[in-house]
Amino acid sequence: MPYYYSYSEYLSDCHKLTDLIDEQFDAIITLSRGGMTLGHTMGEFYDIREVYTINTIGYNDKQKLDEVKIFNIPDIKNAKNILILDDIIDSGDTMREVMEIMRSHYQDVTFKIAVLFYKPTASIDPDWYVQEAKAWIDFFWTEDLKKVKNGI
Amino acid sequence: MPYYYSYSEYLSDCHKLTDLIDEQFDAIITLSRGGMTLGHTMGEFYDIREVYTINTIGYNDKQKLDEVKIFNIPDIKNAKNILILDDIIDSGDTMREVMEIMRSHYQDVTFKIAVLFYKPTASIDPDWYVQEAKAWIDFFWTEDLKKVKNGI
Repeated sequence: MPYYYSYSEYLSDCHKLTDLIDEQFDAIITLSRGGMTLGHTMGEFYDIREVYTINTIGYNDKQKLDEVKIFNIPDIKNAKNILILDDIIDSGDTMREVMEIMRSHYQDVTFKIAVLFYKPTASIDPDWYVQEAKAWIDFFWTEDLKKVKNGI
Repeated sequence: MPYYYSYSEYLSDCHKLTDLIDEQFDAIITLSRGGMTLGHTMGEFYDIREVYTINTIGYNDKQKLDEVKIFNIPDIKNAKNILILDDIIDSGDTMREVMEIMRSHYQDVTFKIAVLFYKPTASIDPDWYVQEAKAWIDFFWTEDLKKVKNGI
């Protein structure tokens, strides 16, 4: 059974996440699409105007196993401490690739990771997370507008 | 009096916006930060994985009047029909600059604009909008987490 993650639970989890995060940042990078709502909310909360996205495309290639393509690496201006946000770290492969690319592009910058959901089996650990993911999650940003359109 | 724009009103307005939009798109660009939640919701709804952001910084320069700096112009891959999304077109100056830059960068691409709020006095018209902005708007993505933190 997928787990429905509502806007009100999200707000409560954002509250918990901001209680956990004990560092200051001058910019935010979110993974598109999954981290965009969180990036927006947290950018507003911390009054960080520099909120950037990075694009990832996962695809299957029979020759090379699963691959992730990262593009639109943001120009981060003068930011030195950056918070990377996403909805969930599942396998962790996408986040690991993003971190490798960002760290090699910006060697003088400190990057930390915060997510709402995390699987302990992932190949990368976040610095902060709120919940362990124990089932497939139907996020409100995927479900709610469809429900409104269908009159639910 | 500022007008509080709730998540439930937003969902209802997204529903209206998707009823108005009568074209198909292969990518979305949102203005950071204001358009990010909308870009996420609409990307999920239309099943468009290519959701990009563009950054704008407005500043006052006594010599040159108000200026807007646009950066992180996205690499839009092979997209040909792009939906530009933002929360509000107020003066319209930022959106006008964004459109000029995007159209000069991507001359073979069709761009259309959809927003939640629009002021008729703006210097650019959206293709689709839901409400006229008649007061300062306190968006839920700015207000709700602060309220939760303050125990409201």
